[in-house]
Amino acid sequence: MTIETLPLDAKTTRALMGVSTATVTTVLLKKGLRNVWLRNTQPLAPGQPRLVGRAFTLRFVPAREDLATPASWGSPISTRAAIENMPAGCIAVVGALGVTDAGIFGDILCARMQKRGVAGLVTDGVVRDVAGVLGTGLPVWCQGTAAPPSVAGLTFVGWQEPIACGGVAVFPNDVIVVDQDGAVLIPAALLDDVMAQCVEQERLEAWIMSQVAEGAALPGLYPPNAENAERYRRWAEAQGKK
Amino acid sequence: MTIETLPLDAKTTRALMGVSTATVTTVLLKKGLRNVWLRNTQPLAPGQPRLVGRAFTLRFVPAREDLATPASWGSPISTRAAIENMPAGCIAVVGALGVTDAGIFGDILCARMQKRGVAGLVTDGVVRDVAGVLGTGLPVWCQGTAAPPSVAGLTFVGWQEPIACGGVAVFPNDVIVVDQDGAVLIPAALLDDVMAQCVEQERLEAWIMSQVAEGAALPGLYPPNAENAERYRRWAEAQGKK
Amino acid sequence: MTIETLPLDAKTTRALMGVSTATVTTVLLKKGLRNVWLRNTQPLAPGQPRLVGRAFTLRFVPAREDLATPASWGSPISTRAAIENMPAGCIAVVGALGVTDAGIFGDILCARMQKRGVAGLVTDGVVRDVAGVLGTGLPVWCQGTAAPPSVAGLTFVGWQEPIACGGVAVFPNDVIVVDQDGAVLIPAALLDDVMAQCVEQERLEAWIMSQVAEGAALPGLYPPNAENAERYRRWAEAQGKK
Amino acid sequence: MTIETLPLDAKTTRALMGVSTATVTTVLLKKGLRNVWLRNTQPLAPGQPRLVGRAFTLRFVPAREDLATPASWGSPISTRAAIENMPAGCIAVVGALGVTDAGIFGDILCARMQKRGVAGLVTDGVVRDVAGVLGTGLPVWCQGTAAPPSVAGLTFVGWQEPIACGGVAVFPNDVIVVDQDGAVLIPAALLDDVMAQCVEQERLEAWIMSQVAEGAALPGLYPPNAENAERYRRWAEAQGKK
Amino acid sequence: MTIETLPLDAKTTRALMGVSTATVTTVLLKKGLRNVWLRNTQPLAPGQPRLVGRAFTLRFVPAREDLATPASWGSPISTRAAIENMPAGCIAVVGALGVTDAGIFGDILCARMQKRGVAGLVTDGVVRDVAGVLGTGLPVWCQGTAAPPSVAGLTFVGWQEPIACGGVAVFPNDVIVVDQDGAVLIPAALLDDVMAQCVEQERLEAWIMSQVAEGAALPGLYPPNAENAERYRRWAEAQGKK
Amino acid sequence: MTIETLPLDAKTTRALMGVSTATVTTVLLKKGLRNVWLRNTQPLAPGQPRLVGRAFTLRFVPAREDLATPASWGSPISTRAAIENMPAGCIAVVGALGVTDAGIFGDILCARMQKRGVAGLVTDGVVRDVAGVLGTGLPVWCQGTAAPPSVAGLTFVGWQEPIACGGVAVFPNDVIVVDQDGAVLIPAALLDDVMAQCVEQERLEAWIMSQVAEGAALPGLYPPNAENAERYRRWAEAQGKK
Repeated sequence: MTIETLPLDAKTTRALMGVSTATVTTVLLKKGLRNVWLRNTQPLAPGQPRLVGRAFTLRFVPAREDLATPASWGSPISTRAAIENMPAGCIAVVGALGVTDAGIFGDILCARMQKRGVAGLVTDGVVRDVAGVLGTGLPVWCQGTAAPPSVAGLTFVGWQEPIACGGVAVFPNDVIVVDQDGAVLIPAALLDDVMAQCVEQERLEAWIMSQVAEGAALPGLYPPNAENAERYRRWAEAQGKK
Repeated sequence: MTIETLPLDAKTTRALMGVSTATVTTVLLKKGLRNVWLRNTQPLAPGQPRLVGRAFTLRFVPAREDLATPASWGSPISTRAAIENMPAGCIAVVGALGVTDAGIFGDILCARMQKRGVAGLVTDGVVRDVAGVLGTGLPVWCQGTAAPPSVAGLTFVGWQEPIACGGVAVFPNDVIVVDQDGAVLIPAALLDDVMAQCVEQERLEAWIMSQVAEGAALPGLYPPNAENAERYRRWAEAQGKK
Repeated sequence: MTIETLPLDAKTTRALMGVSTATVTTVLLKKGLRNVWLRNTQPLAPGQPRLVGRAFTLRFVPAREDLATPASWGSPISTRAAIENMPAGCIAVVGALGVTDAGIFGDILCARMQKRGVAGLVTDGVVRDVAGVLGTGLPVWCQGTAAPPSVAGLTFVGWQEPIACGGVAVFPNDVIVVDQDGAVLIPAALLDDVMAQCVEQERLEAWIMSQVAEGAALPGLYPPNAENAERYRRWAEAQGKK
Repeated sequence: MTIETLPLDAKTTRALMGVSTATVTTVLLKKGLRNVWLRNTQPLAPGQPRLVGRAFTLRFVPAREDLATPASWGSPISTRAAIENMPAGCIAVVGALGVTDAGIFGDILCARMQKRGVAGLVTDGVVRDVAGVLGTGLPVWCQGTAAPPSVAGLTFVGWQEPIACGGVAVFPNDVIVVDQDGAVLIPAALLDDVMAQCVEQERLEAWIMSQVAEGAALPGLYPPNAENAERYRRWAEAQGKK
Repeated sequence: MTIETLPLDAKTTRALMGVSTATVTTVLLKKGLRNVWLRNTQPLAPGQPRLVGRAFTLRFVPAREDLATPASWGSPISTRAAIENMPAGCIAVVGALGVTDAGIFGDILCARMQKRGVAGLVTDGVVRDVAGVLGTGLPVWCQGTAAPPSVAGLTFVGWQEPIACGGVAVFPNDVIVVDQDGAVLIPAALLDDVMAQCVEQERLEAWIMSQVAEGAALPGLYPPNAENAERYRRWAEAQGKK
Repeated sequence: MTIETLPLDAKTTRALMGVSTATVTTVLLKKGLRNVWLRNTQPLAPGQPRLVGRAFTLRFVPAREDLATPASWGSPISTRAAIENMPAGCIAVVGALGVTDAGIFGDILCARMQKRGVAGLVTDGVVRDVAGVLGTGLPVWCQGTAAPPSVAGLTFVGWQEPIACGGVAVFPNDVIVVDQDGAVLIPAALLDDVMAQCVEQERLEAWIMSQVAEGAALPGLYPPNAENAERYRRWAEAQGKK
């Protein structure tokens, strides 16, 4: 019923750790994908480092008093069971319908995810007991904080299904990159191609920044005209030789 | 993977056809269920009659350009395939994330649902080609109308799963009642009990309306105090004898 | 604790019955009042005629399960008690926080208001059992329709207090004019002055419309330059002589 | 400073009069244009017929009390002057920032537009004095109705400039098609190509509807598989011969 | 007209100072109260400590230019007068309709509240002159910051009345607990019972956290099954003996 | 086509550097201007100092896939060209329709603005590559951060035109003051008069704060009654003598 989690090879992870989410969106937009950045999800703590990992998805629907009860926390389809299925290194992506008045997880669930080696938590909802969550050290991207438990607004219905998160369709095993600008996904099928272009785009923009630092004007530089493209090509070549 | 559709017996249908959605919500609230009315879904045509039926659910996530394409309309997981699985008499409940700028269905899909004997369509999204949809005669409750196709904003991912629709959790086989006030669900497990209380509540409110028509003041009448409760009891008894 | 209702003299009512809400807002804006039109309140039935009357205010706060119960309908501070205090000819203005998923009133309460001679009901919330409400004949301006009872979303706390309705401050005894464009208030203290200017503004705009019908261009006509102002003055004078 | 209005030839107008806005969006989406349908604009009167015409744009910014005054109605940059510049047959598209509490135009301005032969008015804002506007007979698509004048919420700044309307970029001379589903634009540069494909798409969908009417199932029909595509080709050919 | 402020005994204050708002919402949800956490109100300064106190309520309605003027600041019903009525130790809860473009209070009013020993300020609106407000040392929970004065968007109408704040009904003398997760209320009538359960819930969750720290899995632990409940019981007993 | 940028004299700049945005809004409100504070724009970095400068405006409309492409970055009407036209000392005010899912500028464009001596950037949109933007040292006020490039949601159409920003009409050369409370504008025509009153208002409020610090109650002090006004007058006079 749910989709198996794939590993992400170390080379891909390493390459993407050097690429900003801004660059990923630029590269994907050039391929026609304009809706890959998850809205309403921000770093919970300042200075959280960039993360890269496969998406492990969780899905909520709205609360119904006959379903969303503290008793439901013990049912076989529960957030607890989902967490016990998360592989080390994955990024948990939780579709919470953008609900801001019920916290999906608090300190206990985040502590358990941390113990299991989950890389981080990304949601369009909020967390609760923020002091406790920060104490666990799990990196979290979310819309904010609320005291009430998830059952005050949400009913959990399953994991590793396609979900909506922040107005974006997230499928299990999409690759997530998340940094200070928030979370972006790379569709699994496009991974190798996107990764290569991202690395190149980062290098080009670093060169452009160096030119701006020296006082160059923008027109003809960003994007580069033929002359600047050639200057860049030579610089990149020289870089490669070092 | 998806849940089988249950029939709804004729006696239940008949009883609920005499009960307003307002009454259903009153009875469910007394049982502690405050979130059973689907927001953002209104009759598309004036004068659509009340409908009663089992929910057959469809689920969308947001559009992604690599997924939501006209080509996807031919895939095995498609709105087309979902429609061919709908049993006669069901009410299709489509969770469309409240999206108002992409129509989930147009004239062709609605015509096919009508042909298959689907009782009606309820969604928190919108339909397209409204003139064509009205022409099919399928009763529709929705948030309005938009020209663009579903793939401009939505990706279809499955049917007969738990969904969010209008801020309410709808499960396959919940019983839907829909009228001029919109759509309400009755959890399958509570059906018999709720039905009985609804019929009684309708009768009580009819008696109260008759008293107001004769000039009675509200305090002590609605809800009835002991004296009025007794007067009603006698009237109801007399009604029963006729 | 609550403010007494003042009557509205027949001459004022008659004069304002000939003035559109659009004209009232134009006249008030010239006096510096830009926030007098109630947002989110529209005619429930097509063709409801213009109404003029004193505001009789009702105030809700959000629902709390320990307060907003069916039992609360029998308490001394209840919508029922408020209705029994409404004088004939008033316009009930109900501040419902813009809540759209709980109906403030249904058929029974509207029927009682109609019986008591209440001129109409204006709210930034919604009504329930819309078929029943339309059956009572009470003119209603609201944001729409919802099945759930008020206690699903709101707690009633009092009447004839200052309220917020549609983003506007409404005080008991403000004069309400409501037509196809919705509801506008005239502060009691400004009534006579505003009324006189409204009557004049309506006459001026009627003359301008007659000029447009004859093919006149807008610049210099609306608003009138000196020449057109003089032409209008002569026409108005001639009108006065008839 | 402003862009000149181009005429629209009679053949194009005639062809597009037979094409629904739903079809236009389908054809444009296949070309990668997903944001061409104006949100928040609906027919003011039921049964308004489809219109086709060049966009004549008007632009508002928010109100500022030192600028948006009744006196400003007489300034050279005014809605009055803009209207006197509208050519017969154009569709006025007014970017009103989605403001719903100040009416952009009332009866007088709409009457003048009607006199000048303007085909229709499309806005993401609202109109005022709705009874008067309906009386002028000008077809209007808007978000609703409000009593206050434009200066209560908006300042007019120019015409025939690029504007935002309903979340869509509208440029002067884009071709507008508007019907019961609202308004869609066709970029001027794509007009001929889009028109041809729209006509063909309408014919295909008519054939599919005829098949559904005869009981055909959707998979393989919509979109057509090879067999159905061939059946359609033969039917279309036969149609052509008649 | 307004309700007298009750004191809060030291024992209750002390007990609740050890309880998180998350725990209060969990306990109240088990009693059927799902709407007790105030939306849109966050700590203004990082690290503000938890506060406990009786609610002293203030109520605003929208601005009206004839009422909301700088002159109104001197009227007997003013925010100034309200502040002079606040008892030491209370928490001022200000219903500001969620308005984010007019600051309810600035440095002067906050300085005076601080002088009077008010424990803190909670609002669903915003404050102005944030640098000045932070300088007063008054702990503030709000939706953010805006430069304009309250009269640009709000009219003050009274204190110690039932109010709406953050979508929650707050009554004078409800007990407020506010920390990093925001503000929650405990209805006065439920105080003793809720307090006792909160203390117990905090202890249980501390034990569960200790188990997670040792590597325990969640199912059967949170909530505890019979075996874990027994283990906890023994631990708690042992704790009690220390 | 675009409006020339005026310089701002040093004396005005110096005077306004000592005035808070809160005070500017108070003074403008007394003149009847209630809509001068830009919504949805906050300091990107903590502790950004107050800035004063002329507005240099930029205008976006929504994205259209045929217009908003990476290729468009090289067109003559581009954000790059706009930046090259900004004079030193101006404050760039960018109307971004409140779009939060596409960053208007990233590190490269901000670095270039910084190089050109632009004083700061104010927008109702968001920036991208926030780490890079902070690295440039350009002071930014915005609604937040998003990874996608501007063309994912916006099309740039011009500079030095009247724009909407944060629900406020901004004209080229309006004077902007921006601090921790956000950005406010002073219409160019009112500059000298407003400046003088602001300086006096700041002095009065400083005196009131000193009185509150000494334990004075608010009524009669803020605003001052005759006695306190006289006390202030004497204090101000004494100040002047020092």
